Amino acid sequence: MPVTSDYLCERALLPEGVRDNVVVSCAEGTIVAVSVGADPGAAHRLAGLVLPGFANTHSHAFHRALRGRTHGGGGTFWTWRETMYQLAARLDPDSYYRLARLVFAEMVGAGFTSVGEFHYLHHQPDGTPYAEPNAMGHALVRAAEDAGIRLTLLDTCYLTGGIDAPLIGVQRRFGDGDVLGWLDRMSGFGPGSARLGAAIHSVRAVPAAALGPVASWAAENDGPLHVHLSEQPAENDACRAAYGRTPTELLHEHGALTGATVAVHATHLTSSDITMLGRAGATACFCPTTEADLADGIGPARELLDAGAALALGTDQHAVIDPFLEIRGLEHGERLRTGQRGRFAPAELLTAATVAGHAALGRPTGGRIALGAPADLVAVRTDSPRTAGSLPDQVVLTANSSDVDSVVVDGGLLVDGGEHCRLGPVGPLLTEAINAVWR
Amino acid sequence: MPVTSDYLCERALLPEGVRDNVVVSCAEGTIVAVSVGADPGAAHRLAGLVLPGFANTHSHAFHRALRGRTHGGGGTFWTWRETMYQLAARLDPDSYYRLARLVFAEMVGAGFTSVGEFHYLHHQPDGTPYAEPNAMGHALVRAAEDAGIRLTLLDTCYLTGGIDAPLIGVQRRFGDGDVLGWLDRMSGFGPGSARLGAAIHSVRAVPAAALGPVASWAAENDGPLHVHLSEQPAENDACRAAYGRTPTELLHEHGALTGATVAVHATHLTSSDITMLGRAGATACFCPTTEADLADGIGPARELLDAGAALALGTDQHAVIDPFLEIRGLEHGERLRTGQRGRFAPAELLTAATVAGHAALGRPTGGRIALGAPADLVAVRTDSPRTAGSLPDQVVLTANSSDVDSVVVDGGLLVDGGEHCRLGPVGPLLTEAINAVWR
Repeated sequence: MPVTSDYLCERALLPEGVRDNVVVSCAEGTIVAVSVGADPGAAHRLAGLVLPGFANTHSHAFHRALRGRTHGGGGTFWTWRETMYQLAARLDPDSYYRLARLVFAEMVGAGFTSVGEFHYLHHQPDGTPYAEPNAMGHALVRAAEDAGIRLTLLDTCYLTGGIDAPLIGVQRRFGDGDVLGWLDRMSGFGPGSARLGAAIHSVRAVPAAALGPVASWAAENDGPLHVHLSEQPAENDACRAAYGRTPTELLHEHGALTGATVAVHATHLTSSDITMLGRAGATACFCPTTEADLADGIGPARELLDAGAALALGTDQHAVIDPFLEIRGLEHGERLRTGQRGRFAPAELLTAATVAGHAALGRPTGGRIALGAPADLVAVRTDSPRTAGSLPDQVVLTANSSDVDSVVVDGGLLVDGGEHCRLGPVGPLLTEAINAVWR
Repeated sequence: MPVTSDYLCERALLPEGVRDNVVVSCAEGTIVAVSVGADPGAAHRLAGLVLPGFANTHSHAFHRALRGRTHGGGGTFWTWRETMYQLAARLDPDSYYRLARLVFAEMVGAGFTSVGEFHYLHHQPDGTPYAEPNAMGHALVRAAEDAGIRLTLLDTCYLTGGIDAPLIGVQRRFGDGDVLGWLDRMSGFGPGSARLGAAIHSVRAVPAAALGPVASWAAENDGPLHVHLSEQPAENDACRAAYGRTPTELLHEHGALTGATVAVHATHLTSSDITMLGRAGATACFCPTTEADLADGIGPARELLDAGAALALGTDQHAVIDPFLEIRGLEHGERLRTGQRGRFAPAELLTAATVAGHAALGRPTGGRIALGAPADLVAVRTDSPRTAGSLPDQVVLTANSSDVDSVVVDGGLLVDGGEHCRLGPVGPLLTEAINAVWR
């Protein structure tokens, strides 16, 4: 990857709006100049519309192997989870690495330059730690390096199989015994090129007394704190029954609701939950395709933003990996829920998929084509059958992942003509890795 | 286009299931043999998974020029309609032809081999008929011929601007004065290669007394009878206020609810409406992307199917033109509405997009890879980043339009390697046609 590089964007979406003939100069992975109409010199030309790199704020990489394999027999979120557990039982550090690098490569090809991996598959199938207790985490770091995506590893505390219920079966792979075990493992984890953050799996999987210590780790290490929040009504019911509080209230009570908190899903909230998340300046990470696929429901996105929360987007279980479909899904969910069009301006949708998403992954300068930002660019074809005729600032609502032509990460060209420069065509390799996992 | 042609499908979805190495022999546009494992001889090889051609059961071709141009200012269905009217005012037979041929070409490239064009843009801007009263209809026929798609022209009776309200402004282009005017125009319309059907725009736009004559025309001419039904609660309210009946009840009362009826949207229905549509053996044509984009809501699809109605799919205003996204949208809508996964089996979803859709367009043998069916095939890449790893029968839930590699219509190869064989890359031409319309 070149240390210094210039890109000539035929057209770019800058913070001040769409501009033609923009030269973006990068050095050491950072944008050091943005010039409109400057002499392009020997700059590499990016055709179409250049957007900042997208953030995939919520990912479980291994779930990718479930795509197109869980629609046969009906069921609910909970029956889907059983299939996911069968998959979780099969992985080891090697197969996890081989699968994840291609999932991350699919993300890069779709325009994601940064991912938050919500990682809980820590130990051997019977719960015994690997000789290197963070072997699975290291596999993810190596996978992200190979694929060229910026990784924020959200190492997840997962202690119980439900409130007051022990971990059973494959869940034993997730657990560190108690929160001290989690803290101990974290203290020995040097994630190399990745950024490290903390995650509370959910109030189902982390007892109330353990919430504070995880939150403290995040605060002390200046890392984001992610948590699955109120994805299903059953979680709310269980939390109320056990603690007499909503999950949001419980997090708040234990110091786990701050500006660094990223509440994933945030689907079934009370209006007081919304106020609380907004006052904390937390981020709500919606995963619209997953929330439809898993029949979760449609959360109160507009209300959260109006209350002061930020919105981000993730592809979660990867039924699709496509920032544009998540953007459209967020807006469509709002429209279906309220009977109103244009619930978010296109710029607000782009912010969710870029600026707010990167910030939620501990990269507060990301997601802009601007001085000092990470040098991540995504060039989208504006003459595809899908994007033809769209106004430039509305292309985020009409493109899809296949319209991504070029992707620059950390100043280097990583996707060119739709193909990953290091790995080549990702599809066939992904097929092989997925077949290997199920074999 | 060759009169006789053989295709070797690497893998095909036949009525009995997925089979490898299938030779499909076509003559005069019809499938005359389907052989599994036969000697392929000189057959043209179709890679990936070959599906029957999709039916786009509800289209307003000219709305394509609105894509990516209506998300700026919020609003409702009704404010969107105002922008659509501005567009409708600009078209004449020439520009309509130039736009529609590329919209139809985009459809073919996405795997649609048949389209139902719900056509109401009949006359000059002030309502005066063109010298040839069906000039606009003929423009659509010519456009479909150029693009190579099978067209069912659903010529639409549109008489009022609301119940008891006159047509105003651009609406005058839609009207034939009264139902006798519509019948008169229809009697002079020879649509050449297209199939002709009838449409009642809606109970808002066709007075109760005119419903019977339109339905009779359809019955006498053995054509389908399409109607926008209960897309918005406001339509139901107006109909109840004027007639004391739901729109479904009103259609039923006037003989416009039969097995040939295609109720488009069918979003806001009573349970008695659902029973009535089911008993009639009508088809409900859902347009999930449009119904989300226009904030219509999510209709009772599963209940309609269970009641005896058929389900079909359309891209309507063409916010996207993608059979896979409509399939997914139908299933996702159900999941969001009910909290259950797998509301439709993948085979049921494919039936909606193929067999039921073609039947609703007056092509009852379409949508199957089987003896005697129209020779329409769609080869989908199963090794794209999107489809990699999917089970073959679930690819309809993971692919998108960009994964369509080849399309055969009427026995001839029309799309090859994702490109339209006659027109070349559709995107740039479409951009030009759309810009021309708005200029």
